[in-house]
Amino acid sequence: MKAVVKTKRTKGMEFIKVPAPRIGPRDVLIKVMLASICGTDVHIHDWTRWAQYRFKPPRIIGHEFVGKVEKIGDEVTQVNVGDRVSAESHISCGDCYQCRNGYSEICKDLRLLGVDHDGACADYLTLPEHVLWKNDPDIPDKWATIQEPFGNAIDTVMAEDVSAKTVLILGAGTIGLFATGIARASGASLIIVSDPNNYRLNISKKMGAHITLNPKKQDITPIILEATNNNGVDVVLEFSGNNQALNQGLKTITPGGRISILGIYEKQVSIDLNKEVIFKKIRIYGITGRKVFSTWYKTSRFLSSGLVDPSPIITHQFPLKDYEKGIKLMKDGKCGKVILKV
Amino acid sequence: MKAVVKTKRTKGMEFIKVPAPRIGPRDVLIKVMLASICGTDVHIHDWTRWAQYRFKPPRIIGHEFVGKVEKIGDEVTQVNVGDRVSAESHISCGDCYQCRNGYSEICKDLRLLGVDHDGACADYLTLPEHVLWKNDPDIPDKWATIQEPFGNAIDTVMAEDVSAKTVLILGAGTIGLFATGIARASGASLIIVSDPNNYRLNISKKMGAHITLNPKKQDITPIILEATNNNGVDVVLEFSGNNQALNQGLKTITPGGRISILGIYEKQVSIDLNKEVIFKKIRIYGITGRKVFSTWYKTSRFLSSGLVDPSPIITHQFPLKDYEKGIKLMKDGKCGKVILKV
Amino acid sequence: MKAVVKTKRTKGMEFIKVPAPRIGPRDVLIKVMLASICGTDVHIHDWTRWAQYRFKPPRIIGHEFVGKVEKIGDEVTQVNVGDRVSAESHISCGDCYQCRNGYSEICKDLRLLGVDHDGACADYLTLPEHVLWKNDPDIPDKWATIQEPFGNAIDTVMAEDVSAKTVLILGAGTIGLFATGIARASGASLIIVSDPNNYRLNISKKMGAHITLNPKKQDITPIILEATNNNGVDVVLEFSGNNQALNQGLKTITPGGRISILGIYEKQVSIDLNKEVIFKKIRIYGITGRKVFSTWYKTSRFLSSGLVDPSPIITHQFPLKDYEKGIKLMKDGKCGKVILKV
Amino acid sequence: MKAVVKTKRTKGMEFIKVPAPRIGPRDVLIKVMLASICGTDVHIHDWTRWAQYRFKPPRIIGHEFVGKVEKIGDEVTQVNVGDRVSAESHISCGDCYQCRNGYSEICKDLRLLGVDHDGACADYLTLPEHVLWKNDPDIPDKWATIQEPFGNAIDTVMAEDVSAKTVLILGAGTIGLFATGIARASGASLIIVSDPNNYRLNISKKMGAHITLNPKKQDITPIILEATNNNGVDVVLEFSGNNQALNQGLKTITPGGRISILGIYEKQVSIDLNKEVIFKKIRIYGITGRKVFSTWYKTSRFLSSGLVDPSPIITHQFPLKDYEKGIKLMKDGKCGKVILKV
Repeated sequence: MKAVVKTKRTKGMEFIKVPAPRIGPRDVLIKVMLASICGTDVHIHDWTRWAQYRFKPPRIIGHEFVGKVEKIGDEVTQVNVGDRVSAESHISCGDCYQCRNGYSEICKDLRLLGVDHDGACADYLTLPEHVLWKNDPDIPDKWATIQEPFGNAIDTVMAEDVSAKTVLILGAGTIGLFATGIARASGASLIIVSDPNNYRLNISKKMGAHITLNPKKQDITPIILEATNNNGVDVVLEFSGNNQALNQGLKTITPGGRISILGIYEKQVSIDLNKEVIFKKIRIYGITGRKVFSTWYKTSRFLSSGLVDPSPIITHQFPLKDYEKGIKLMKDGKCGKVILKV
Repeated sequence: MKAVVKTKRTKGMEFIKVPAPRIGPRDVLIKVMLASICGTDVHIHDWTRWAQYRFKPPRIIGHEFVGKVEKIGDEVTQVNVGDRVSAESHISCGDCYQCRNGYSEICKDLRLLGVDHDGACADYLTLPEHVLWKNDPDIPDKWATIQEPFGNAIDTVMAEDVSAKTVLILGAGTIGLFATGIARASGASLIIVSDPNNYRLNISKKMGAHITLNPKKQDITPIILEATNNNGVDVVLEFSGNNQALNQGLKTITPGGRISILGIYEKQVSIDLNKEVIFKKIRIYGITGRKVFSTWYKTSRFLSSGLVDPSPIITHQFPLKDYEKGIKLMKDGKCGKVILKV
Repeated sequence: MKAVVKTKRTKGMEFIKVPAPRIGPRDVLIKVMLASICGTDVHIHDWTRWAQYRFKPPRIIGHEFVGKVEKIGDEVTQVNVGDRVSAESHISCGDCYQCRNGYSEICKDLRLLGVDHDGACADYLTLPEHVLWKNDPDIPDKWATIQEPFGNAIDTVMAEDVSAKTVLILGAGTIGLFATGIARASGASLIIVSDPNNYRLNISKKMGAHITLNPKKQDITPIILEATNNNGVDVVLEFSGNNQALNQGLKTITPGGRISILGIYEKQVSIDLNKEVIFKKIRIYGITGRKVFSTWYKTSRFLSSGLVDPSPIITHQFPLKDYEKGIKLMKDGKCGKVILKV
Repeated sequence: MKAVVKTKRTKGMEFIKVPAPRIGPRDVLIKVMLASICGTDVHIHDWTRWAQYRFKPPRIIGHEFVGKVEKIGDEVTQVNVGDRVSAESHISCGDCYQCRNGYSEICKDLRLLGVDHDGACADYLTLPEHVLWKNDPDIPDKWATIQEPFGNAIDTVMAEDVSAKTVLILGAGTIGLFATGIARASGASLIIVSDPNNYRLNISKKMGAHITLNPKKQDITPIILEATNNNGVDVVLEFSGNNQALNQGLKTITPGGRISILGIYEKQVSIDLNKEVIFKKIRIYGITGRKVFSTWYKTSRFLSSGLVDPSPIITHQFPLKDYEKGIKLMKDGKCGKVILKV
């Protein structure tokens, strides 16, 4: 079969022929229909510091997808041949302290699809049945493939409820954009989105942002304070991975508010913990992965009910072999989510 | 001044002349603009069992209103003459175990506006400043007067979040109708409303109900199960005060779900606690009043942001003197909220 | 092997020879060391209404035990031969809405050990590995066997925290007695236990009850109110399954308090929902089973750290063949937990 | 009257004669019995950077006390002459967004006793009645005066429950020591205390620490991991205000755990947010003040019930005029809590 493979410990990837995967008794073979590209894939492609530390070539990349079940192992009971599935990308062990306490998303022996296990940018992939999700028939393929990052956005937004609350979203990458739609659908009464990329700010408006701010061009603090009767926002959602943005969030959050942080930072962050967290009694939630599978149910409902329409975020589609086009667009910041047709 | 007064321990009320109220050092005199009628007022009018037990004539009725501050006591610091205000109708003592733990809505020495303290169906009323709420200028008078019951609806809906959840609303009286709009605005992915009154079911559709059911004409259980993949609903909101409706709610709630109950029952209720609550691990929230003032902030935001448009619920307006027309309509079930112009 | 088997749809059980169980690829064969008797087993023995409805003979009974792993299936990875194990008695499907949302204790296809699956009152039993719990070496066998009901008690007590709170425990059966120790260890500042059985009230004192009450001999309401400055208790834990006790709990709970209910009732219950739940804004938690496995971790820590010493509750031990002695003692109310040595 | 007054913008304080305070209609005059010294008072004494920025001489210091009501204003209703009282030191406005949402401890116009309002190190002080707390008669004077910082410790420990959890306490100053007792009383199954001061580690043992560590003399990380089966601790309570300690806490917390931070830092802190917070999905609670008055109820119950005996922490008592002795002891780290007799 053909697949996008990270073959070497250097920049770049290859679209090459590889053997089709084989399945064990609890595994499922899936024929991929669509896969989508994540920022992680760009890191792997560009062989950044994180990738050098974490990724071991050769490996097929890709962890967001929709596909059809082609074959099931002897002991598989929960899916059938022909089922249209996506998958939780965090393959957990089921046996560690975290797994046994209901936190499989932070399993101690976590294996990531497309990083530790051959990924979805290929004609076929194989996965243990316990990570599979049967897709709601009302969700089109193009939306089904983006459920994995959509779930990240849900867990960031809904760490606490946002109904009738004021929300600042820092970073309008695809997850920040999903979050904008989710916050709007969940009753946030004011949504402010800040990002230096105007292309993405425009998409955020379509997703429901009431105010969009470009921190490169404006001092965002007084605008946020004015929009909130000088109280600051109730909720900050940090997707940028930028220390300065994080500090702006902490500065403009109202005392007693909460911040959820999903963004990944280049290095240690520096925070005025006294003034911005302790004396303001802020709650901070570190967010990673998704609750398996309660978040998937929510994702499915947001998308199948029409509560969130992610169409403005899905900006491009290419054949799998043209994955480099997608990676380039992402690096240029000239796209939302890029989908690859297998 | 003129006021609607419950003068005697018998059916009926009177629209009569009474002395204008006087204010103490921490009190505020308010000129009423609009008042609205609540089911409680109908109980008082009809001198039902609850009213006979709880109400002591003579007393001016009415606890939902919007008005202008006319005069303030010497020690009042939080409102000024001319402020457009509404009020929390639960006048709490500030000193009991509940008040000191942040539960003033269930104060041990609670005094209710229009029941224990002269009410708003009058040219003027006086209130201690600590229960006053300064209205957002973006909220029109007709919406400002219904904030008190709107808050009941918020606390019922938001006892836990409803985002991406399936919700069954039992009873489409005005609070049930507000709840429908609030649940829709807060991201419920499926809202089913059940009520025997088709007039009100029609309003519930305008407020966002996905499915409306008339339990007098249909067996609602199989319809609810079918609409939820046989799982039952995640959330039940009980406003009907009907034991049979409550049991339908408990029967169709998914194991692990929650029910919030605001409805008032005619007598003791009978429940299959084993099967419907314990083995299904249900959480039940008794709801009364509103959080003071966190719920008022939410109310204000739902209304001022346009997240909830209560217009379909506000069906009638009369001059204060015609309050009997409103009470008759309510008893006939041929209205949503009835507003009285003072 | 020998086992206690419910053979017929009538009163009684038999201690007979049966074939030893066989294991599948994900199963584990366990040699039982100790088993303990639960109230459920008495129902099965006496062939009560619940048993007639729920239980299908023939079946080996018993769901509380400690044993040694004798043999493991080919695909078992989490336990080894020789491990000293107990087990979650709720065997869940892993695939339903409840299981996939982290509520396996209320799985839609729940199979109960000793009811739907051959139980532990036998020389051997077999179980799927996913329900097994490896016991902490610091916990003696006699304590290891009672972890299953101890977990019920934890979930009832800790539905919300009890630290510095006043607690009323209704029913001093073994689970109520475990709950007394757990509430004491978790910082309840006042624990009142009510039960008509003085034998058990005496044990509750040893477990940490500050006040013990016999509702057959005293009017408990004024005593509870006096002990709580007329506020009532913050927390009620209902283990009795008695409608009258439940109503006493609701009557003496402080407004804003919570009640957790584990007790099973003979028929529908009747409650003054208006006065005791709605106007008092009470939260009710139906409790069943245990969180798998977060509650087991807590159980293990309470017992291994010495925070709770269950010795006063474990009153009798017999050889397995003398199970009838234990059942008689339980029916007479002259025991705490009865253990059977296999 | 005599009082300890910070008279000048330089190091030191003075014990001098000043006019007795006068009361307004809602105020209460209190004759001080005991006051106790807080770290804040040492900052004011030593005129540190925080003091220079925040404190405006002249001002009587002291915010922890017990006293008798001597006189009440005309409108005071909640206390009487002769009542033995302490007080919430955070004097809130009652009117801001935080106050009206139930967060008076982070009021926007917060006035601190002994900083913005004349304090308790004097024969008399006056306070508005709404901050007063009537002491439980079962609590001796020496314990009553330390309720204010005891409440800080409660809110840090109980941001989430600690029952059957493993806890790391960083910093064994008086609040860390109170927290040790509170965590023990609330069911923590393992309490590890880390502090470079052996005098205070010894007190922490008396308060219930299972393991005490001196980070100046040991590498604490491997010891913590070993004590927790390599899982790390469930809960970290940070009282040290030391960036290195904070990082040790984040490093040894189990994924999914929570940290509460009360310590105040000398400057911005630096954190590996990716590795220690985001990928580990940690919740961080900034803690300041106490919930008014729900925390005071808990404080009162911990102390009056005997759940926590703070005696080992109260190490010294001097006459008020010898306050310098107390301040010196605190700077030398040779004391727990120092009490001043007025």
